Amino acid sequence: MADEFDFLQWIKDRQRAVPRTSESARMVQLGSGDDLAVLRWPGSELLLAGVDQVLDGVHVDSTIHSPQAIGRKAMNRNLSDCAAMACLPAAALATVALPRGVGLDYAKDLYLGMEEAAEPFDCPIVGGDTASWPGKLLVTVTIFGRSAGIEPITRRAAKAGDFVYVTGPLGGSLLGRHMTFSPRVTLARDLAEQYRPSTMIDLSDGLSRDLGHICRQSQVGAVIDAQVVPIHDDAVRMAKDGRTPLEHALHDGEDYELLLTCSHEIPGLHRVGVVTGDPGVYLRHGENVELLEPQAWEHKL
Amino acid sequence: MADEFDFLQWIKDRQRAVPRTSESARMVQLGSGDDLAVLRWPGSELLLAGVDQVLDGVHVDSTIHSPQAIGRKAMNRNLSDCAAMACLPAAALATVALPRGVGLDYAKDLYLGMEEAAEPFDCPIVGGDTASWPGKLLVTVTIFGRSAGIEPITRRAAKAGDFVYVTGPLGGSLLGRHMTFSPRVTLARDLAEQYRPSTMIDLSDGLSRDLGHICRQSQVGAVIDAQVVPIHDDAVRMAKDGRTPLEHALHDGEDYELLLTCSHEIPGLHRVGVVTGDPGVYLRHGENVELLEPQAWEHKL
Repeated sequence: MADEFDFLQWIKDRQRAVPRTSESARMVQLGSGDDLAVLRWPGSELLLAGVDQVLDGVHVDSTIHSPQAIGRKAMNRNLSDCAAMACLPAAALATVALPRGVGLDYAKDLYLGMEEAAEPFDCPIVGGDTASWPGKLLVTVTIFGRSAGIEPITRRAAKAGDFVYVTGPLGGSLLGRHMTFSPRVTLARDLAEQYRPSTMIDLSDGLSRDLGHICRQSQVGAVIDAQVVPIHDDAVRMAKDGRTPLEHALHDGEDYELLLTCSHEIPGLHRVGVVTGDPGVYLRHGENVELLEPQAWEHKL
Repeated sequence: MADEFDFLQWIKDRQRAVPRTSESARMVQLGSGDDLAVLRWPGSELLLAGVDQVLDGVHVDSTIHSPQAIGRKAMNRNLSDCAAMACLPAAALATVALPRGVGLDYAKDLYLGMEEAAEPFDCPIVGGDTASWPGKLLVTVTIFGRSAGIEPITRRAAKAGDFVYVTGPLGGSLLGRHMTFSPRVTLARDLAEQYRPSTMIDLSDGLSRDLGHICRQSQVGAVIDAQVVPIHDDAVRMAKDGRTPLEHALHDGEDYELLLTCSHEIPGLHRVGVVTGDPGVYLRHGENVELLEPQAWEHKL
C-alpha cells in the first residue's frame, strides 16, 4: 500500500520535471524534499505572504467535488489574495491532511489541481507538508507574492469621497462558481497601474462584510446603492430559497471578484457606492438608507 | 457568542502591542489584518520557507494536551526545521482549523502557545488563517527563515567517510518530550559556523528513517554502531512495551534532536556511525551488520 513517502517522492520527481525557465522558477534554489525550501528573493521587491485553508464540509464537499477541483480551489483562493494586494504570485507551499485510506491517486489529484491553478500565474509549488489522519480532508496553501513594481494595495487607505467598485456580478456563487472562479490577478495589476485604488480586497466573505473590513481598517464608512449592485444570474436562481437576488448579491460569500475604492472613475467596472466620513456600511434604496449588516457565513468559534 | 472576527481582532491588537524593535520585526511592513502580510526581505539573504501541521489524534491529543502546549509544539516543529537547515527563524504564519464550539479562549491559548515558542527566536507571527469546522483540531504553521550569513545545510551532500552525529539521547519521546522539546536553532548555527556539516536534518521520523532520507538524497549509505547510539531514559522506561531501549532510540519519531554528517570530528556530540559509498542504512552489533529498516510511525495514505 502506498504511503506518504511515495507521495513525497512523486512530488519531488514532478518538480524536477518542470522546466526551470520562468522568472519565478529561477528564484527557487531548492524545492521539495528538504526541511525547508530555499528561495533567492529579489531584495528590491516586497515579499507578500499568506495562507488560506479549504476545509471539507465548509468550503468544499468531498462527497461531491473531485480532488482536482478541491486542489484548484485551495490554490485559487490564495491567488485571489494576491489579486487583492495587486502583487504577482511567486511560489506556493501545498499542505494536505488526508483522511486515512483515501489512497495515493486521490493525493496526486489534489496536488495536480493545485498545480493546474498555479501554473498560468507562474507560481511553482516549492514545498509543503502531507499527513494522513482519522479526520476530514483539509488543504492549506501558503502563497508568496512579489510586489514587482507595484506598491501593495491594502485595506487601510480609503478616503471619504472615493467611489466603491466591484469587478463582476455577485451572489449565488455556491451554485458552482465558488469552485471554478478565476483569480483576478491580471485585472488587479492593471487597475493598480492605471488607477491606483486606495483599497482593495477579494470578495470571499460577501460584499456587506468585506466592505465592513475596508471601512473599519480605513476608519471610514460607505453607502451602497441597491439599484446598481450587479446581480449574478446565480443569485436570481438561488433566490428561490426566499431571499431576494439582491440579498444574495450583498451577503453571499465566495464571489472572488475584487472590491475596491478609488478616487478616480474607472470605466468598465461596476460602481456600486461611495465612501463616507461616518463609520458604518449603509444601503440606499432610493430615498431610504439603512444599515447593512453582514449575514453571510457561520463564523462561530 | 464569540466568532472568528473577534479572534482576528484580538490577534491584530496583540500584534500591534508587540514592540517592533527586533531585527525580524523591522522587516514586517504589514502584519495580520489584510489579505497578505508584507515583508521587506533583505535581498542579500536567502529566504527559507516551509510548513508543518499538527493534527489532533496524530501529533497531539487534545483530550490530554492543553491548547497552549499544542500551539507551542506546532511552532517548535517548524523552528526545528529552521535548525535543520541552520537558518534563523524570521517570521511565521499561524493557521488553525478549530472544532466548532471550542470557544475564543481556546483559540487564544493556541495562539499564545505559538507566540511563546516563537518569541525567544525573534520570530514574529505576521499572519495566518482561522476557520471553525465540524472536524478535529488542526494547527498549521508556515515558517520563514533567513540564511543570515550561513549557506543552508541540505540533505544532499553527505560523502563516504563522513561521521554521523546526533545532538542528544534518543527514544521514548512520546512519554512527554515530543510536547516540550527545544528546537536546536542556536546549536545548529554554531555547528554550521564551526564545522560546516555536509548534511543535517531534525529527527522527527526516527533515526532509521531520517538517516535514510539523508542517504537517499546524498546517494550514499551509512552504518550505525549499536553500542554508541545514545539512549534516552525515556526509551528505557518505554521498553516495558516489549521493544528494547535501543529499538526505541533507533525508530521512535519526534526526538527533534539534530542528525548530521560531517567530515570533521565534533567534540560534545554523539558520534553514532559513518557514511559509506554503498546505499542503504545498516546497524552494526559488534561483528554483525544488518540492514536497518524504519519501523516508526504510520504513514499510510
